[in-house]
Amino acid sequence: MTSDVAMTGKEPRTDRGRKTLRKLLDAATREFADHGFHDASISGITRRAGVALGTFYTYFDSKDAIFRALVSDMSTGVAQAAREALDPAMGALEIERVALRAFLAFAAEHKEIYRIIDEAEFVDPESYREHYETIGSRIEERLQAGGEAGELAQGLGSVEAWAVMGMNVFLGLRYVIWAREGDPPFDVIARRANDLLARGVGSGHS
Amino acid sequence: MTSDVAMTGKEPRTDRGRKTLRKLLDAATREFADHGFHDASISGITRRAGVALGTFYTYFDSKDAIFRALVSDMSTGVAQAAREALDPAMGALEIERVALRAFLAFAAEHKEIYRIIDEAEFVDPESYREHYETIGSRIEERLQAGGEAGELAQGLGSVEAWAVMGMNVFLGLRYVIWAREGDPPFDVIARRANDLLARGVGSGHS
Repeated sequence: MTSDVAMTGKEPRTDRGRKTLRKLLDAATREFADHGFHDASISGITRRAGVALGTFYTYFDSKDAIFRALVSDMSTGVAQAAREALDPAMGALEIERVALRAFLAFAAEHKEIYRIIDEAEFVDPESYREHYETIGSRIEERLQAGGEAGELAQGLGSVEAWAVMGMNVFLGLRYVIWAREGDPPFDVIARRANDLLARGVGSGHS
Repeated sequence: MTSDVAMTGKEPRTDRGRKTLRKLLDAATREFADHGFHDASISGITRRAGVALGTFYTYFDSKDAIFRALVSDMSTGVAQAAREALDPAMGALEIERVALRAFLAFAAEHKEIYRIIDEAEFVDPESYREHYETIGSRIEERLQAGGEAGELAQGLGSVEAWAVMGMNVFLGLRYVIWAREGDPPFDVIARRANDLLARGVGSGHS
């Protein structure tokens, strides 16, 4: 989950370095989630990480840089969670169901993701846009592959991809971030959303 | 679009008062969109509105209060735009298509809506949540009415409603806020999203 940190030009070369970097990113997640970007501080991050202030600068130039790295790290984490849950033998609709299920589970484990990605809209608009453009493209490729395989309709494109992404993001918002007693389990949510994708919400006798 | 301002307890009783309030809200929209909540100022708002600083306090107690009123005003605006586009004779699927079309047009006219609603997540989390809970409930009622009328499937609920809301919000993000040369017109976007709702994305021969 740390490969995209390379963009800072300070990617660690040793296991120990990678562990320290991971500690800094995890600490930054908590610091930004608790205080928001503007009130978060580098010293707050190093204190939570249990490393010296100077160590921070071995990896990042600034609070902006670690925030940017964190958004990228979370994008990578979402992608990886989906990838790990998927299997080459799955059909196109099953892929979407399993990917949503994996996203809900990832968000439940990393509830800060909404706050941090959403704050990127203000702190780092380019990362924010790139986060969604990347996920949207990935979904679009999956839908097109499903069309080519004959399981999905022909000609699906970015409208359908952004519709699917929006469904997933808002189901996470409602059932993870704003979860309520009595909500259905993630499996049921993913299945219902998948039924919508498979057949729509029409009664089938219109 | 100003009825919800009543919650500030300072709703104007005269036409002139309502006009001034409208001016303040429109000025606040621009001020918050340009500077974000933290850097926006009451004097910036009154300057843009062309009213005296003291006039502000006839309507609002604080910057927080006008921000809250603005989120509520935008929620009301979205609802009203949808309502004006709808017709009692429309079927359930047509209602969703027309509501999305109206939302895209509203967002195109009020591009600040995304930035302001999204900033509410940080400035005023309760308004943020209420904005989406309200829209989600409205969509859920429409879907259930469609089920009762036999046009939509039985048993649609909040999973489907939040899925539809997420679709709409993300289609607005992509095709209004991040619009690109060559994008399809809103009618086509609304029709494609509606096809997804009506029949899903399956090829129909699985």
